[in-house]
Amino acid sequence: MREGLTVAEAQDHILEATPVMGAETLAASEAGGRVLAESIVSQRRHPPADCSAMDGYAVRREDLSSASPDAPCTLPVVFEVPAGGHAPRALGSGETARIFTGAPLPPGADAVVMQEDTDQGAAQVEIRVAPARRAHVRDAGEDFDLGDTLIEAGAVLGAPHLGVLASVGRTIVSVHQRPRVAILSGGDELVEPDRPVDGGRIVSSNSYTLAAQCREIGADPIYLGIAEDTPNAIEARMRAGLGADVLVSSAGVSVGDHDHVRSVLEKIGCRLQFWGVKMKPGFPLAFGVIEKTGQLVFGLPGNPVSTAVTFEEFVRPALRKLMGHRAVHRPTLRATITDRYKKKRGRLHFVRVTLERTAEGVLAHPVSNQSSGVLTSLIRGQGLAVIPLESEGVEAGTVLDVQVLDTTFFDGVDRGF
Amino acid sequence: MREGLTVAEAQDHILEATPVMGAETLAASEAGGRVLAESIVSQRRHPPADCSAMDGYAVRREDLSSASPDAPCTLPVVFEVPAGGHAPRALGSGETARIFTGAPLPPGADAVVMQEDTDQGAAQVEIRVAPARRAHVRDAGEDFDLGDTLIEAGAVLGAPHLGVLASVGRTIVSVHQRPRVAILSGGDELVEPDRPVDGGRIVSSNSYTLAAQCREIGADPIYLGIAEDTPNAIEARMRAGLGADVLVSSAGVSVGDHDHVRSVLEKIGCRLQFWGVKMKPGFPLAFGVIEKTGQLVFGLPGNPVSTAVTFEEFVRPALRKLMGHRAVHRPTLRATITDRYKKKRGRLHFVRVTLERTAEGVLAHPVSNQSSGVLTSLIRGQGLAVIPLESEGVEAGTVLDVQVLDTTFFDGVDRGF
Repeated sequence: MREGLTVAEAQDHILEATPVMGAETLAASEAGGRVLAESIVSQRRHPPADCSAMDGYAVRREDLSSASPDAPCTLPVVFEVPAGGHAPRALGSGETARIFTGAPLPPGADAVVMQEDTDQGAAQVEIRVAPARRAHVRDAGEDFDLGDTLIEAGAVLGAPHLGVLASVGRTIVSVHQRPRVAILSGGDELVEPDRPVDGGRIVSSNSYTLAAQCREIGADPIYLGIAEDTPNAIEARMRAGLGADVLVSSAGVSVGDHDHVRSVLEKIGCRLQFWGVKMKPGFPLAFGVIEKTGQLVFGLPGNPVSTAVTFEEFVRPALRKLMGHRAVHRPTLRATITDRYKKKRGRLHFVRVTLERTAEGVLAHPVSNQSSGVLTSLIRGQGLAVIPLESEGVEAGTVLDVQVLDTTFFDGVDRGF
Repeated sequence: MREGLTVAEAQDHILEATPVMGAETLAASEAGGRVLAESIVSQRRHPPADCSAMDGYAVRREDLSSASPDAPCTLPVVFEVPAGGHAPRALGSGETARIFTGAPLPPGADAVVMQEDTDQGAAQVEIRVAPARRAHVRDAGEDFDLGDTLIEAGAVLGAPHLGVLASVGRTIVSVHQRPRVAILSGGDELVEPDRPVDGGRIVSSNSYTLAAQCREIGADPIYLGIAEDTPNAIEARMRAGLGADVLVSSAGVSVGDHDHVRSVLEKIGCRLQFWGVKMKPGFPLAFGVIEKTGQLVFGLPGNPVSTAVTFEEFVRPALRKLMGHRAVHRPTLRATITDRYKKKRGRLHFVRVTLERTAEGVLAHPVSNQSSGVLTSLIRGQGLAVIPLESEGVEAGTVLDVQVLDTTFFDGVDRGF
């Protein structure tokens, strides 16, 4: 087992050990945000035939070559083609047909005149323009044709994808499965949030943060509860999570006497692959794989900020890869840090910052309390400024990479144009 | 009723007519992404007492003023304070206590020595450092104190918020309700996606795009099905949607003979507030309010891209306001358009573009087919470049505002630092 990896080494190691999950077949209406596990090839042509793009009149251009607002042409309206209907016969020379948006063009017609360019007559119509070739005509197959690949496997299904799926009659699709993530907290001091906190007990908030982090990306948390700090109790709870795809425990991987997690992990068949990542917050991170099943196991540190940040950096990318995403990481942007930040060499620091857009770019204000125990600092921290491993810190005004955790930062308060 | 508003006028008009919905009380585990309708004031102090931030030894600093790696001090270990436990008595002069992360500091102690700075002895311990005042001690109330406002009303509940809610024992919270959005399609040519499409019939894909657009932001779509193109059929289906918070119909507000929606809307008590927005795609947009109930009514154009874009520009901000969001708009960024785009004055154009990040900034490539009938162009179009109302178009190389529709554009393919 390796110890003391860099953040990049640890991420690479974890992502290499993480597979992409298999497919499941799902109602398209439930598939928003999921990653497509098949390519969608059209079995249809759309539009199915040449059709009108407007409400107006189907015409033969040769009949209207001289038409203009000053010298309109008057033609008989010989039939009507409603949307969803079809022409009873071909359009003859000198004839027009009333036509509506989406209706198929009658044989013989080669353009549509929109009704705004006519007197909208019923038995006959006065036309004030000489239409261009195929004016207001949508070609058969303009949107897609038989055999066209409409959506590639690996696409994240957004609303337009779901519209296209409907338009080719696909109401059932194959998408990558969502991982079930078993979450365990350990510690004799912990209680569930609805229980009394007298006698120095504190709420097992990490499990609730972790479950929310899972749900946020569409993974399915299974909360295993709080294990007492004994090997038997931890083992029993961990075994309850062995059916999941990922097992995440918080607390219990530090160097403390009361930390039995590592020995239990070995006992349940987990091959620990590394322990410890050179970062702050969050050094004591363990990663392993259950040898028989391939289940991923993450032992996260117990301080609330360390737990949340190590989930962000290591568990979240793995979960996103499991779900079939190619872009597994958080957005990053360049921002100017507004305060001096000092550190020792040897660990990469993730500094919680609030973000402010200005005309000169984004400012990153470090939140005042960077203690890894202060979960409320993560609410205020919209992002994590990255201070590299071998840096001894940065002066105010330095431009840094900032990982954006709070995606509402991108939302527009104003319309923006 | 006003006609032919600008996009900005129409958005402002709609947002002014849109209320914020009332609150509902919900399990915190279900509240991710929702907007908090109450401020969360702490009824607890956290940490509840001064406590250790490390596994180590609680000490009195005066006993260790001379300790160093070369001249360690040895002190007796008189008791142990486990996490969740408490000290049996105060620490006397010349004494230490074994202490674990999160455990309360014994009275009399004023610092913690981390175990890495000791020989980790059991009955007595050799200590190799002179600790700073309150070293490795977390102060009572460091994270939050009684009466602190931890989360302001209006916050969008992310994972850290849900962790904080748990830590103060709040398992039930008050959030703004999600709007129910009744969706109606109209047109004799339309069929549901699981039905045959012979005879020029096409799938009612707009309803499925709209339902997905609703779900994407957490609104609750109710699909009313396809209305035949008769006033009675439209009225019957619309009445079925009057219990919802918002009614959205697609198709049926153009100028066509077959469009009965406007008269039906008036019949069911809808006061139409405006019709037509100077934009492309999507001019024929109608907006009104059911007078008795305040239900918002949107009549969207029927071409698939027009439907989706008018939802984006007008319905989505209204739904987000209903849900309590302050940032109701899509993200926008500045990008360089890579092709010439010509237009007439008098309408604002939303040009579908793919986005490419480069060292010189973001490039916006217009998708090849800008026809409003081509839904597949919205899959390829990650954003909408804004070409202003009075512009006659732009040359390649012009920097424009681009609204980002595909938020996966922000996701990191690389770790980004």
